Formats: sequence, structure tokens, C-alpha cells
Amino acid sequence: MKMIFAVIRDKDSYAAIGALSEKNIGVTKLASSGGFLREGNTTLMIGVEDSRVEEVMGILRENCAKRTQIDVAAPYPIGGAPIWNYNYSTIQVEAGGATVFVLDVSDFKKL
Amino acid sequence: MKMIFAVIRDKDSYAAIGALSEKNIGVTKLASSGGFLREGNTTLMIGVEDSRVEEVMGILRENCAKRTQIDVAAPYPIGGAPIWNYNYSTIQVEAGGATVFVLDVSDFKKL
Amino acid sequence: MKMIFAVIRDKDSYAAIGALSEKNIGVTKLASSGGFLREGNTTLMIGVEDSRVEEVMGILRENCAKRTQIDVAAPYPIGGAPIWNYNYSTIQVEAGGATVFVLDVSDFKKL
Ligand code: NI
Ligand code: NI
Ligand code: NI
Repeated sequence: MKMIFAVIRDKDSYAAIGALSEKNIGVTKLASSGGFLREGNTTLMIGVEDSRVEEVMGILRENCAKRTQIDVAAPYPIGGAPIWNYNYSTIQVEAGGATVFVLDVSDFKKL
Repeated sequence: MKMIFAVIRDKDSYAAIGALSEKNIGVTKLASSGGFLREGNTTLMIGVEDSRVEEVMGILRENCAKRTQIDVAAPYPIGGAPIWNYNYSTIQVEAGGATVFVLDVSDFKKL
Repeated sequence: MKMIFAVIRDKDSYAAIGALSEKNIGVTKLASSGGFLREGNTTLMIGVEDSRVEEVMGILRENCAKRTQIDVAAPYPIGGAPIWNYNYSTIQVEAGGATVFVLDVSDFKKL
């Protein structure tokens, strides 16, 4: 048995918890802030069989890993719809990122 | 030394923390949600000597284990006292439940 | 790699997190309450290389250890400045205190 502590971005927590739960992987969300990741973060505490650690890493990689997102900055006239035929710029935004610690569990019980 | 992470129901946390503290067992309550147990849950972080792990398990079993409670659904007239001589039904309710992880502590200090 | 869980006083958390971050030591603050230390407490989750555990202990000792503080109870006239030539008493106050657990990390990844 392993206990995985994953510090992820708040924004990625909904998708990560959903994906883990769908595979019947037990996850508890701890309220956390600051630290490893500067923005708002969430700590997931995940208990799994040793044989499923790689599966959890894959799910976290898919839902929480650092990636570059392209945000479109389209100019809006006041009160109007975006002007798509206008000259606008895109911005590259860094998103996600996870710090993952895997610890050995010496005993596990469900009461 | 061992570090025990116990994910328990919110409703059982007051009794569990009280029972642990009474035995001078150090416990910290972490704010948590979702996951292992679907309803509102609380994570207890408990640091103990190896020799007291079974004692902690006993306290958690006594205060947090899954059990069936019988709730009485007695009909109330509007604004009045319950009508005990009325025909009412009882409901079996699942309560409690704890997921407990025991981890080895390699070093422990009080500063 | 080690995972350090330090239960410290709320009041010491700002200084401790600042001192750890300044040394590029990753720290996550978990919302916690009650337990090991009776007053409001905070749990820091700190991931570090084995070679830096003593450095972390030093930082925690410097910022969070139990100490005696002397508080001056100077009488204030209503709406006025403190009367320093008045007969006043000092109070010794117990401050700080940390309970630190060091756990082995079997695997560590940044995603
Ligand atoms: Ni195992
Ligand atoms: Ni031990
Ligand atoms: Ni190591």
C-alpha cells in the first residue's frame, strides 16, 4: 500500500478527483495553501495498492501536469461582442503543475 | 514512532478527538473533504509510539467504525409534540466508517 | 527525500513559511486545528532532500520553538498614550512550540 500526497493547482482538483474516483481510487482533498506552488493549491491524499501507483501518476499527469495554454486576448467594444476580424494577440499562459510524494504505508485498515 | 492518517466522518470527529486526547495521544485535525468517504469527512493525523498503535485502532473502532443506527421517524402534528401512540416507522441508517493508514516515522522531535 | 509534517502555532506560520521559502524549500500549509498543541495550530508539509533535514529543523527551531516571552502590561488612560512612569507589571507568556515528524519518501515527482 502507498500513500500519495499530490500538491496540485486548485483549478485542476475537480478533474483530478473525478478521474481518480471513476477508477475507484480513494482520494481525500486537504485544504492547503501557499508553498510548493505559488498560486492557490490543493493537496490530494491518495491511498492505493503498490500496483496502481503508476496508474495514479498517469491520471495526475493527464489532469494536473504543467502545460502551456494559449489564451486569446480578443478586443471587445464596450458592451458588445468580440471583434474577431480585428487585429488581436494571443497570450501563452503557464497552467497546472503537480508535486507528488509517494510514501510507504505499513498498515491499512477500513473500520 | 508511527504517523496515523485516519479519514473519518465529520460527525465522529468530536468523540474521536476527545477519546484520543483523554489518553494523551497527540492528534491534529486536518480540514478535508470528498474522497474515500462520500459525505463530509475529517482527516485525523495522529502521532504515536509503535506500542500504542493498537490502542489508537481500538479508539477509532469504538468512535468511528461503520455501524447501523436506527432512526425513528415519529410524525409531529404542526407545532405540537411527537405523537408516540401514532403508527410510525423506523429507518436503518448507515453511519460512521473510517479509512486508516499507518506510516513509519523516521524521526520525531518536539521543539 | 523526506516528508516533514510540522505542527506549529498559527502565529509562527508566517515567519516559518517565509524562512523556508527564502531557502527554496518547498512548503505547503495545511489547514488544521486542535490536537498536539492546544491553541490554534497550522500543519506544514515540507518536502526536502535527506541532506537538508537538519537545515529545516534549524529553521523550525528558530521560528517556531517553545520560548518564554515577556509581555508588558502598561496601563493606558482612556484615549491616551501609555503611562510609562506608572506602576505596571510584566507577564511571562509561553509562546511557540512545534511537533515535527519526519517520514521517508519512496518516490518523488514533479509533473
Ligand atoms: Ni504496500
Ligand atoms: Ni517508530
Ligand atoms: Ni530520500
